[in-house]
This record gives sequence, structure tokens and C-alpha cells, in this order.
Amino acid sequence: MNPKQQRETFRINKYTGTTSGMCDNYLQANMIMLPKEYAFEFLLFCQRNPRSCPIVDVLEAGVTHPRIAEADIRTDLPKYRIYRNGKLDKEVSDIKGEWREDFVTFLIGCSFTFEKALREEGIGLLHQEQQRVVPMYKTNIPCEKAGRFEGNMVVSMRALKPEEIDKAVAITEKFETSHGGPVHIGNPAEIGISDINHPDYGESVSFDENERTPVFWACGVTPQNVGLNVKPAIMIAHAPGHMLITDQLEEK
Amino acid sequence: MNPKQQRETFRINKYTGTTSGMCDNYLQANMIMLPKEYAFEFLLFCQRNPRSCPIVDVLEAGVTHPRIAEADIRTDLPKYRIYRNGKLDKEVSDIKGEWREDFVTFLIGCSFTFEKALREEGIGLLHQEQQRVVPMYKTNIPCEKAGRFEGNMVVSMRALKPEEIDKAVAITEKFETSHGGPVHIGNPAEIGISDINHPDYGESVSFDENERTPVFWACGVTPQNVGLNVKPAIMIAHAPGHMLITDQLEEK
Repeated sequence: MNPKQQRETFRINKYTGTTSGMCDNYLQANMIMLPKEYAFEFLLFCQRNPRSCPIVDVLEAGVTHPRIAEADIRTDLPKYRIYRNGKLDKEVSDIKGEWREDFVTFLIGCSFTFEKALREEGIGLLHQEQQRVVPMYKTNIPCEKAGRFEGNMVVSMRALKPEEIDKAVAITEKFETSHGGPVHIGNPAEIGISDINHPDYGESVSFDENERTPVFWACGVTPQNVGLNVKPAIMIAHAPGHMLITDQLEEK
Repeated sequence: MNPKQQRETFRINKYTGTTSGMCDNYLQANMIMLPKEYAFEFLLFCQRNPRSCPIVDVLEAGVTHPRIAEADIRTDLPKYRIYRNGKLDKEVSDIKGEWREDFVTFLIGCSFTFEKALREEGIGLLHQEQQRVVPMYKTNIPCEKAGRFEGNMVVSMRALKPEEIDKAVAITEKFETSHGGPVHIGNPAEIGISDINHPDYGESVSFDENERTPVFWACGVTPQNVGLNVKPAIMIAHAPGHMLITDQLEEK
């Protein structure tokens, strides 16, 4: 399926799972939607934290169609999260009932974009093999503050064989708008992750710690984590792992 | 003089002229100050137009000290322009009397930053030799719109000898946060400039058109030009050519 066909399956709720592995070569994006009063400070937060929050598109207040996808932002992601006053209220398959004309939408690069390039070099991705949502963790790596937005980075994890790591670093470094190279390799405790088997977002992936090393990339779920500190009356985001698939070919 | 000493001469109004040629190796910046209600759309405008508006720092509402210069933004530029309702009201040497807590300040890279690198390669700069403010022109090159902000690019011009041009392109392309390489070389009419001897900002520089070719770089005065279309009740900017000298060494 091409991105347009794939998004159609989300729109009619035929499919509501993770987008990892879908529409190879197309850029996937994290989504975060905030009332306009937060838009300046949030955009500045992204500008100051390009590793975790690389902006790939911004939809001005009231705009429902991105520039990089022939999509309706209210229906064309497989799953959404609605946060109220800093707490997760619910997960839904569309947000038509919540839409407001003062919502500004931010699209942020996603590491799913580089997964095909990894597979092409023979690097197996366990979360795809095990059909799980990629595991994501809160870390102790601080983001640079902007206005009310402050907090720590969220990372995604892929456990790789030692001989794959250099290659994975070299490949992903080229994907500048999709988080680039890893932010940490090895011991999870060094970045504040206490239990690799209990991710904060996504699902746990099984791997043999004697054979594979966890490798961590900055993650576009960071804004959800940071946004919760600000406690906006409403904040809508993609469900982690359930991205907007754009019509834009990946950029390396 | 180092940047701090040089800014002191501006603060006490000992000097109010152009900063071209001052504090070699230090990044110089365009300044634009807007009430917070415009901040999101203006930051988005910069994000969409990185060639003319490369952001080097943003001061959140009410903040008077940049992160990249130990300076007071209200006094430490040699000259300011105050625009009201889309018209130039006056030029002043400080803006202490106009300062408001809801002002957000944007600092944008400036082509003065790469002038030393040009001179070091033996490329003479006529505006410095003739002691003029570098000439700047409105063009017909459209910027990408963001919210209410739309309009055409402003460019600065340096007339070079034919044998200097390739070298100047190669040098300036490395200065990504200071506008990078030229946007146009040669015939001014092709980018909508009708009379090279009557710049829209700065001062005219004399050169022999048989011996030198005009070379144009994107200019951080673009936001002033574009901001005037929006007609904010108040907008404050540096006087063209009269920049903030930062404490940050140039980045190539």
C-alpha cells in the first residue's frame, strides 16, 4: 500500500496498530496538537531541542491538512491520545469530536523513518519480528527549556548485535530530521532507565542481553512527556508508535 | 575591542554607526522584537525561511539578556528602528522607554559575520572601503508564508571582481547560520531590483560595472520588510547595518 491507501485504512478504523514497518521509504511523523496559546513556546522548545524534536511540518491554527501529506490530521493516524490537565484521558481512533479552530499541530520526525535502511543492511529489528510497539523510555537526559516547556528526553530502543552497532550509527546519522544517530549505547542505567523490561511507552521486547546491546535514539514522544509538565487543559498526540505516514520520501 | 567593550560604546552612545568590520570572528545578529501575540507566527516564518531568517537566539517574553551575548538588548545595539502600524516612526539609540514585558526578541544571523573570512582571502569589500552601510534591496523573491507573515526577501549586495566570485561562494556557503552562499549573482533586474544605485536600506556603494559583478546574499532585514505587511501596533528592530555583536565565535 502507498501512504494514501495506508492512511485510508486508519481513517475507516480498519487498522489501529503501530505503523512501524509500513510504507517503506516514506517519512513518518510524531504529532502533537496544542491550543494556540502554547504554540510559540512549544515551537521554541522544538527549535532548541532538534535532536528529539526535529520539526518536519507545522499546521497553523485551524489547519487540518499538513503540507507533507494529503491527509486529514483528525482522522488519518491509527490511534490518538487525549491528555487533559497533564493526565492521559483516553486513546481514540479519531479526534473529530475534540477538534478546535485554535489547535496548532506540530509534526516531528520519527525513527521509524530509518528502520527500512537498517533492515536493508541486514540489521534485524526485534520489535517488528515480535510484532510489538517499539519500546520507549523516559530518561534523565534534560531537554533545553523554552517558556513553560521543560523536562527529560524520551528514547526509543533497538537491541542490536555488537557487530551491527557501528553500521547502525553510520546509517542513522544521515537521517537528520528523523533523530539522527543514537544518543546512548549500552547500559540503560546510565541514562536513568531502571528496568529495560518495563518501557514507559510502547511494549517490552525480549532479547538476550549476552548477545545484544540496547541502542537508544531520541524519540518524538519527548514532547508528550514534556507537555504533561505544562498541564495544558487539552493536548492531543499520536499514540506512541502510531504515527502519521506522510507522502514525503525519507531524507537522508 | 572585544564584543563587550564594543557594545559598551553603543550603550553610552559613543558610537552609533554600522557594525560592519567590527569584532572580527564574532557572530553578528539582526534583531527583531514583537509583542508576544505575533511570536508563534514569526518564529514559524523564520523556521520556513532559514536562508533569510536563520535563528541564532530567541529571548522569551520579557527577557532582556540574550543567551549568546552578555548584553542588554534594549541598549547594546548602536541604533534601533521603531515601527508603528507598519510605518517607520523613528530611529533611536536605545529603546528603554519603549520596552514592554510582552516583547519577544528574535536574533537572526547576519552576513557581516562572514566578511572577515572574505577579506582574509583577499576579497576587498567596497562598502567598508567607502565607509558606507552595506546596500540592501527589496527583491521579487517570495518568502514562504507563515500565518500573517508574508512578503519578499531582502538581500545585501557586495560587488566583486569576476575572479573572486567562486571563492566568495565557497567561503560563504560554510556560514549556514549567517545566510550561507549567495542567492543571486549578476543582473539585479532578474530579482526585481530596478536601480542598483538606490538601495532600499543602507547606502549606495560606487563600483565600475565593467570591472565588478553584483553578488547578492539573503539578508536578515527581510523580517522588517515582511513585518511591515502585518502592521503590528509596534515592532522594534536594529537599524539596518547596525547589528548586535554577540560573544559567540562565528560558526562555519
